[in-house]
Amino acid sequence: MTTRVEELQRQASARPGVISLAGGLPADELLPRAALARASAATLGGRDGTEPLQYGWPEGCPALRAWIADRLVARGAAVDADDVIITAGAQQALALIAGVLPRQRRIIVDAETYPSAMSAFAFAGHDVVTEVGDVHYVIDGVSNPHGIDRVAPVRDSLLASGLPIIVDEAYVDLRFDGAIPRPLYADAPDRVWHVGTVSKVISPGLRVGWVDADPSLQHLLINAKQAMDTCTSVPAQRTVADFLAGGHLEPHLDRVLSLYRERKNAMRVALDRHFGDAVRATDPDGGFFLWVTFADSQVDTAALFEPALAEGVAYIPGPAFSTNGNFHDALRLCFATSTPQRIDEGVARLRAAVDRYRGHQ
Amino acid sequence: MTTRVEELQRQASARPGVISLAGGLPADELLPRAALARASAATLGGRDGTEPLQYGWPEGCPALRAWIADRLVARGAAVDADDVIITAGAQQALALIAGVLPRQRRIIVDAETYPSAMSAFAFAGHDVVTEVGDVHYVIDGVSNPHGIDRVAPVRDSLLASGLPIIVDEAYVDLRFDGAIPRPLYADAPDRVWHVGTVSKVISPGLRVGWVDADPSLQHLLINAKQAMDTCTSVPAQRTVADFLAGGHLEPHLDRVLSLYRERKNAMRVALDRHFGDAVRATDPDGGFFLWVTFADSQVDTAALFEPALAEGVAYIPGPAFSTNGNFHDALRLCFATSTPQRIDEGVARLRAAVDRYRGHQ
Repeated sequence: MTTRVEELQRQASARPGVISLAGGLPADELLPRAALARASAATLGGRDGTEPLQYGWPEGCPALRAWIADRLVARGAAVDADDVIITAGAQQALALIAGVLPRQRRIIVDAETYPSAMSAFAFAGHDVVTEVGDVHYVIDGVSNPHGIDRVAPVRDSLLASGLPIIVDEAYVDLRFDGAIPRPLYADAPDRVWHVGTVSKVISPGLRVGWVDADPSLQHLLINAKQAMDTCTSVPAQRTVADFLAGGHLEPHLDRVLSLYRERKNAMRVALDRHFGDAVRATDPDGGFFLWVTFADSQVDTAALFEPALAEGVAYIPGPAFSTNGNFHDALRLCFATSTPQRIDEGVARLRAAVDRYRGHQ
Repeated sequence: MTTRVEELQRQASARPGVISLAGGLPADELLPRAALARASAATLGGRDGTEPLQYGWPEGCPALRAWIADRLVARGAAVDADDVIITAGAQQALALIAGVLPRQRRIIVDAETYPSAMSAFAFAGHDVVTEVGDVHYVIDGVSNPHGIDRVAPVRDSLLASGLPIIVDEAYVDLRFDGAIPRPLYADAPDRVWHVGTVSKVISPGLRVGWVDADPSLQHLLINAKQAMDTCTSVPAQRTVADFLAGGHLEPHLDRVLSLYRERKNAMRVALDRHFGDAVRATDPDGGFFLWVTFADSQVDTAALFEPALAEGVAYIPGPAFSTNGNFHDALRLCFATSTPQRIDEGVARLRAAVDRYRGHQ
């Protein structure tokens, strides 16, 4: 019985008719397809006079680096375009940082955190811990898997620790109240690695993300990036840069946030209707996910996965987000990719699965 | 004074008027721009019914994996689509392999070899050696920097060594005689990591490559790929798959090979005209490069780089390709990206730089 997210998602996608609340991606119907297709065509047509089909520099395309720096400046951080390195999504930014840290650091993560960050750290030979360590990893603005801001309450103590901090901002633009936090980078530029991505808002398939770090760390990251894959796909970078320069982001975000907010509410209503006091759920500040904990701590969400698939619903069991297999009585639900009606049906199926599974225990 | 290839290329590109024989990329005028733009438009239009803007599986797009396997089968290797993992260029394939090898291997390379392979191995903590070691790295078909087939003469002893072999086939399709070697993978599938890319023939900017390995090694590579960047840019993969399925490769290769052959000949003529017996040069079997060694072993090609730039020509000094800074009396010239006329002018400038530099010694 696996708790690897990707393996569980494969199992869900292989079963026809399953309502998958297991995803970690934007809603298909919200992808800005037409604007990206136009941006891509302009890029391959060579609109800006340079050649997207040749190698780019490892640090990335100047226009994209400048846009990212400007956005951080607007949020209060003193960032220059030269401080930004474009990566193949936030995942590669995490892998690069893990690769250039001194060997075998102890990286402190939340007790529940993003599983692929743990993979990237472990792959580079670091230890992932939840208490005492050498480096912090946090997901700012909107956490995964909870969907709530877990950094704001500990911001001061985090900065006061004096440790390097890897700040993952994958969901930071997806706050339902529109209040994007002041970047941690603004208050400790010399020891914050700031990671972002277009995956959660524009397109995960393009694989465009970035890391901003202190200029003294830039050459390490650039050398690592070059050793890892030479440069990020240039047409992908330029497509994103063209989309952003075209002013498409803000109207797109408005549309996306309004729909995700509606879906989040639908999921909370559905959980209340079908489970009542049998579960506690977070009330997300943004993003894609709700974190659900069963009142009955005997529920084993890893064991429940297969019965749930049989009922036609998929989710990610709690232990997938834990360094040590904890949170067997919790699970993550994605509200972003299903309509309110499907969300209600999915949660009803989950209830049926829980009942059926209990009957067989 | 650096001998890092990328740094030297930056210096060359920053100087207007320089004839750069320092490149490692296809000729701009040979990029199959129109066919790739059509393929990209078809991809983002969703021609095959799946969604290129969402995450893909870490192992890559099925159509592309199948095409790569079929091509290897046609060359005599028993490869299944499931044995192929799509990567962000050959560079990432090398980084992935380096990442999944047991820690701190001694990787045997040619005395002159591809610098970024050495970077990928060193970045993962391995030792790069030229004699006794645990794993071989070879560039099959057409070597970099020599442009000649350095594997054929040692093929049998390489296989007889019993060691794992990382086979880099970046230039294998660019043989002027069209004779593509039997893949080493065909004769030792359980210990050959086979690496390929579209960078040298179709487009380096897209960042699409692959690694084929024994099924027993697949899960290691897939987990590593997921930890490194989740998946390769999906629109890029699908653009390449669409280009290949459209039958564009063979006519494109014909056009490319005829032009590179002509440019190689032009460079050999120019070297003879301007240097005569003062240099020895390889007679490339294919690819982009000639390897030039000065008869006068006092020539220091790293020291010559700046005077050459001042004369208006750039190349890569020999030590860039060496594990330990050897080959100071050699250099690599790229014939692929310049017209015969520019090649002649570039070599004339190189001669002038050598004369000027000697006068100042």
